[in-house]
Amino acid sequence: MPLKRILNAQSVAVVGASKSETKRGFQAVRTLIDEKYEGKIFPVNPKEKSVLGFRCYEKVSDIEEPVDLALITTPAGTIPAVLDDCGKKGVSGAVIIAGGFRESGAEGRRLEEEVVEAANRNNVRIIGPNTSGMMNLKTGMNLVGLPDAPKGDIALVSQSGNMALTLMTEARLKSHKGFSYYVGVGNESDIRFHEYLSFFKEEPDTRAVLMYVEGMRDGRRFLQEAYKTTLHKPIILLKSGRSKTGRRSAGSHTGALAGISEVARSAFKRAGIIVVEKSDALFPIAETLSSLPSIRNNRVAILADGGGHATIAADILTDLGVEIPEMEHKTQERLKKILPFTASVRNPVDVAGGTDADPSIFAECARIILKDPHVGGLLLVGLFGGYGIRFAESLKWKEEDSAHQMGKLVRKRDKPIVVHSLYSSARPHSLDLLRYYNISVYDSLDTACECIGALAERGRYLREYHAKVNFVFNWGAKARPEGRAIIETVRKEGRNFLLEPEAKRLFQIHGAPVSEDRLARTAGEAAAVAADCGGEAALKIVSPDILHKTDAGGVRLNVIGEGAVRQAFEEIVGNARRYRPDADIRGVMVSPMAPPGLELIIGTKIDDQFGPVIMFGLGGVMVEVLRDVAFRVLPISPRSARKMMEDVRSIAILNGVRGNPPYDKAAIARVLLQCSEMIESYPEIAEMDLNPVIAYEKGVRIVDARVILKEGQVEGG
Amino acid sequence: MPLKRILNAQSVAVVGASKSETKRGFQAVRTLIDEKYEGKIFPVNPKEKSVLGFRCYEKVSDIEEPVDLALITTPAGTIPAVLDDCGKKGVSGAVIIAGGFRESGAEGRRLEEEVVEAANRNNVRIIGPNTSGMMNLKTGMNLVGLPDAPKGDIALVSQSGNMALTLMTEARLKSHKGFSYYVGVGNESDIRFHEYLSFFKEEPDTRAVLMYVEGMRDGRRFLQEAYKTTLHKPIILLKSGRSKTGRRSAGSHTGALAGISEVARSAFKRAGIIVVEKSDALFPIAETLSSLPSIRNNRVAILADGGGHATIAADILTDLGVEIPEMEHKTQERLKKILPFTASVRNPVDVAGGTDADPSIFAECARIILKDPHVGGLLLVGLFGGYGIRFAESLKWKEEDSAHQMGKLVRKRDKPIVVHSLYSSARPHSLDLLRYYNISVYDSLDTACECIGALAERGRYLREYHAKVNFVFNWGAKARPEGRAIIETVRKEGRNFLLEPEAKRLFQIHGAPVSEDRLARTAGEAAAVAADCGGEAALKIVSPDILHKTDAGGVRLNVIGEGAVRQAFEEIVGNARRYRPDADIRGVMVSPMAPPGLELIIGTKIDDQFGPVIMFGLGGVMVEVLRDVAFRVLPISPRSARKMMEDVRSIAILNGVRGNPPYDKAAIARVLLQCSEMIESYPEIAEMDLNPVIAYEKGVRIVDARVILKEGQVEGG
Repeated sequence: MPLKRILNAQSVAVVGASKSETKRGFQAVRTLIDEKYEGKIFPVNPKEKSVLGFRCYEKVSDIEEPVDLALITTPAGTIPAVLDDCGKKGVSGAVIIAGGFRESGAEGRRLEEEVVEAANRNNVRIIGPNTSGMMNLKTGMNLVGLPDAPKGDIALVSQSGNMALTLMTEARLKSHKGFSYYVGVGNESDIRFHEYLSFFKEEPDTRAVLMYVEGMRDGRRFLQEAYKTTLHKPIILLKSGRSKTGRRSAGSHTGALAGISEVARSAFKRAGIIVVEKSDALFPIAETLSSLPSIRNNRVAILADGGGHATIAADILTDLGVEIPEMEHKTQERLKKILPFTASVRNPVDVAGGTDADPSIFAECARIILKDPHVGGLLLVGLFGGYGIRFAESLKWKEEDSAHQMGKLVRKRDKPIVVHSLYSSARPHSLDLLRYYNISVYDSLDTACECIGALAERGRYLREYHAKVNFVFNWGAKARPEGRAIIETVRKEGRNFLLEPEAKRLFQIHGAPVSEDRLARTAGEAAAVAADCGGEAALKIVSPDILHKTDAGGVRLNVIGEGAVRQAFEEIVGNARRYRPDADIRGVMVSPMAPPGLELIIGTKIDDQFGPVIMFGLGGVMVEVLRDVAFRVLPISPRSARKMMEDVRSIAILNGVRGNPPYDKAAIARVLLQCSEMIESYPEIAEMDLNPVIAYEKGVRIVDARVILKEGQVEGG
Repeated sequence: MPLKRILNAQSVAVVGASKSETKRGFQAVRTLIDEKYEGKIFPVNPKEKSVLGFRCYEKVSDIEEPVDLALITTPAGTIPAVLDDCGKKGVSGAVIIAGGFRESGAEGRRLEEEVVEAANRNNVRIIGPNTSGMMNLKTGMNLVGLPDAPKGDIALVSQSGNMALTLMTEARLKSHKGFSYYVGVGNESDIRFHEYLSFFKEEPDTRAVLMYVEGMRDGRRFLQEAYKTTLHKPIILLKSGRSKTGRRSAGSHTGALAGISEVARSAFKRAGIIVVEKSDALFPIAETLSSLPSIRNNRVAILADGGGHATIAADILTDLGVEIPEMEHKTQERLKKILPFTASVRNPVDVAGGTDADPSIFAECARIILKDPHVGGLLLVGLFGGYGIRFAESLKWKEEDSAHQMGKLVRKRDKPIVVHSLYSSARPHSLDLLRYYNISVYDSLDTACECIGALAERGRYLREYHAKVNFVFNWGAKARPEGRAIIETVRKEGRNFLLEPEAKRLFQIHGAPVSEDRLARTAGEAAAVAADCGGEAALKIVSPDILHKTDAGGVRLNVIGEGAVRQAFEEIVGNARRYRPDADIRGVMVSPMAPPGLELIIGTKIDDQFGPVIMFGLGGVMVEVLRDVAFRVLPISPRSARKMMEDVRSIAILNGVRGNPPYDKAAIARVLLQCSEMIESYPEIAEMDLNPVIAYEKGVRIVDARVILKEGQVEGG
């Protein structure tokens, strides 16, 4: 695997190495020396004989020994030639620092394509361009020029050099953890996010992957790889570029198509990724997840030496969906024995001064609390670590004893403890001890809560882990010959949409419950069909030249009686002729009006980052006014189909409100799965729109269906 | 004003003063000495002759000189006697440290009542009990025993001693600002939140009020005082106890009835309070609002030296409702002249390395950006302050120059600059310089964004300041004699609810559009009334013994024709007799069925903290399933009535969707105002429920109305 050779390179050529101290090519060599890089360093620059004591080569291919990786610090225009030379030498990868590519407009985009082409033909994989670089902290291969990066077991993958710098600075100042690798993905021109992930999944010294993402070029494969990774290692991800301006900003510097959305969030979570919303919490959550056992039952106890912190923590944890259970009677009785009568021994536990004279009581409380089977983890909030500072210096010994006990307790019970301490920034020894035992300590109460919340979220994911999630299509596997024939007819006729009868037939082929329609070519035929329907009928124009039937006056609903049907037929056809005089009118579709039920909308579209996604919502104001919809990246499993229905706020309506019986959710789920199957069967489909689907106590009916095809040739097709 | 004498006390008696170093009564005297309290210290303890060199008195009344304030450190049971003695001496206030009062159950509640009684009869005001104490940092009157509290111009009012400690620690470690006063309100047994506020409103050395609140005993008067204060000084407030467990936790330690809710949030915001959700942001926002001009146009420019920070900042600001406008062409041209061609000169501005060699370019950019009339404030994100650390030491002079220029720029333009710096915790001189100029600097990007967001929020409030907001009722002012007569009849009959005809008449008296009903005493009368209605009629039982008419089978809708009306009358009366055989049946109300329209629900109830509140929502699933409702504390102004309609997510339906015309919002607003007027007129009303109110393109109609009265005697009544 070339990534292994690249990220663990035993030799680096620095193209553009320089003697001038302000040049990137000087700093690069300087840093490799300072960081005691284990591998070999080969400066390359036709104008120099040596750089910092190393012999300097005219070009990469002049180097006698093997070269695993090239760090290219020369300007954008020089790169294709350098890559050709690297190819000659058998270099596996190149880190390209220069900007001025896709992020800078059309000219840069062209240049980037040229670079990727050169890389492909030379069998060189590219990190970047427009990247701050890459680090392997185990070997000292620091290609970023940032000293003092803290070592540890977290792999960092970032689309912003400054965010990487932020996280490393934070780790250095506030933590005892650090990084195994850093990759600045830059424009993601060649090596994609999922390839890095696939390396870190297997990398033995990496226990968690921390990612800052603005936009991805192959979101679907990333999801698939993430899904496989998160069963073994947590992935912690912040996706920025939610807002319009945020996207403008992201676009201006990485050339990526940014944009988080509900689609992305639900997809990431389905792949088991911990999605972080606030940059403050990003490193702490990664640190916590790489160090502590996850919470198996979503239940946390809070231990406090004052009410305010406990109250705020309870609020935040509740918002995060974590339970704060009542503890067993036995637990409460045990706590009562060691705490003053004014203490609260329910959860949250407030020691009410019971630790003032002896903070080792905290460890006693922790021991009792973590023994309770209802409690999956402990959040300690308040002054711990500061008793020796605030009250009496001698108390620090008790705090240190307490820290040792709590540290061992985490191992014994395999339940996590996270600590909020007001005195964290004073770095008392007791808190360093806690960190030694991998207990997370934060001076921010919000952060401490979010960290224990992440342990609970990871525990929920692992408990409910679903082996059938799949983000990869088996294109065409379930296509039916008749379905393929429909698509091909449409293509042959040069259309990009299916006529309603074609669309409905396609659904029918895949088992979906469409309304029973028949095509009438004359007013008489229409009247005959309508008579068969009994009661009310719906009439709709069928023409390859009319996609928007309503706009063309091509729809009449609730038509009753022969005379009315004939008149409706004539009107519809007349309207269509006026709308488009040259329209090829195939006839009018006549269908029985569906009995009243609950209107749903189901649709699919192509997301820029993740490809085909499916949407579900309740028709009418719920979707149109309240935008109450759920999305899933396709394909979906039966469980996903059920879960996405639960994601809409209006789910209660489906469950039956105001005395109504529940609607047939199993039948709705089947339609969602049928849509998934159809997308997988016919990669030509760009968009489907079922609006409305009408749900009943038993069954559903698809009343209107639109299917739009992609333009041109199609991947997987 | 006694609070002035208390909070600026020139002399303090320490009741329970002690020679034992571990006692609160020793620490109290010790701290006053250490903090160089300007006033006089009088230890009081019958068992001691002197404490720490001060003569010790047997009781407060033995002190020869005037005593402004007593700090009482003795246990709960001793307090009433101490207060009697304080009263004899003419002491204005007492800070009561002891716990064991209302927060500890029924016995404590009784004791607290006794203490308040003693205070009242002795004309002594109480801070606490169950408080960590109080500080006047200007005079060194530190009654908390916490050293090193940083001085400044923010008044801190907190219901948790630990939260106060947290905020002071944070201020000391991360800021150059601090506090003018601290008050621990404890159980709020006597002096209420609004009284402290009223003092700080006038206090000349206080520029902002920072509050941590779990529950309030007189929320309405607090709102009124806050509304008056925020025009001149910002109030920054965190209200915890949102969650059920949070409330349980709060209840266990302050005895307050906690519980934030949409009611509280909307009320606080209406009073101009900056409501903070995260404790991390609490002090920074207070610091920023006390130091920097607010943003007049809600528009912020972002200046960055790297994309990641700018993208995240744009996301957060957008979420906070702040605009990130495009800047004038002129501005962009000016920026282009001083930045590299790869820089982005739109907003966010990314200098793209343009400051690497000279960070004073930041000040140049700031000057150009703040000159733009579209820009109301500047957020600088990234590495500023760290150029001298990260790149070359000599750059620090440029950074310091830049800091001076930006500092002066804030004054010149009267527009704020907030800075995020990765290097904040390294405390480079340039960042201290920024702080000297009152520019806020944070190492958390989230916090920096929230701070500039708060400046924008305060600017929006001041720009839209509405002089007609009022949280105080003028009880009975608009009562009508006939309305009073109805209420009195109900009372006389020993009922706690109005019959529907009474309720509707009451609304009618106040001008509200109720349906036209008539009471029928016989089936024949009912048929005659129904005939007058034309078309369909609704029949409802009228009985003082039946509140829930539907449950009693006492409602028939859409009744057509004489026979059906007679039959419905008999059925309703029969059902009612079966439901309650002894029911006093006054007859059956017959009304024309309202034409179809949009169903609304309007109601009022008494909130535990704020008193009467009004609720508005769209009927059916919007309220019942989606809980899509808006609340306002009463009374409301016409503007509030309009604004609360806009608060529901389903407002788009009112505005007309799917081709429907808009509904008559002015008429709906009038009903909301009529409800407000009625609550103010008749303080006996506990609850009103208008369900449904039907809205039309023109006008609205109240179809059903319930009015419930309070039990027993009524304040203001």
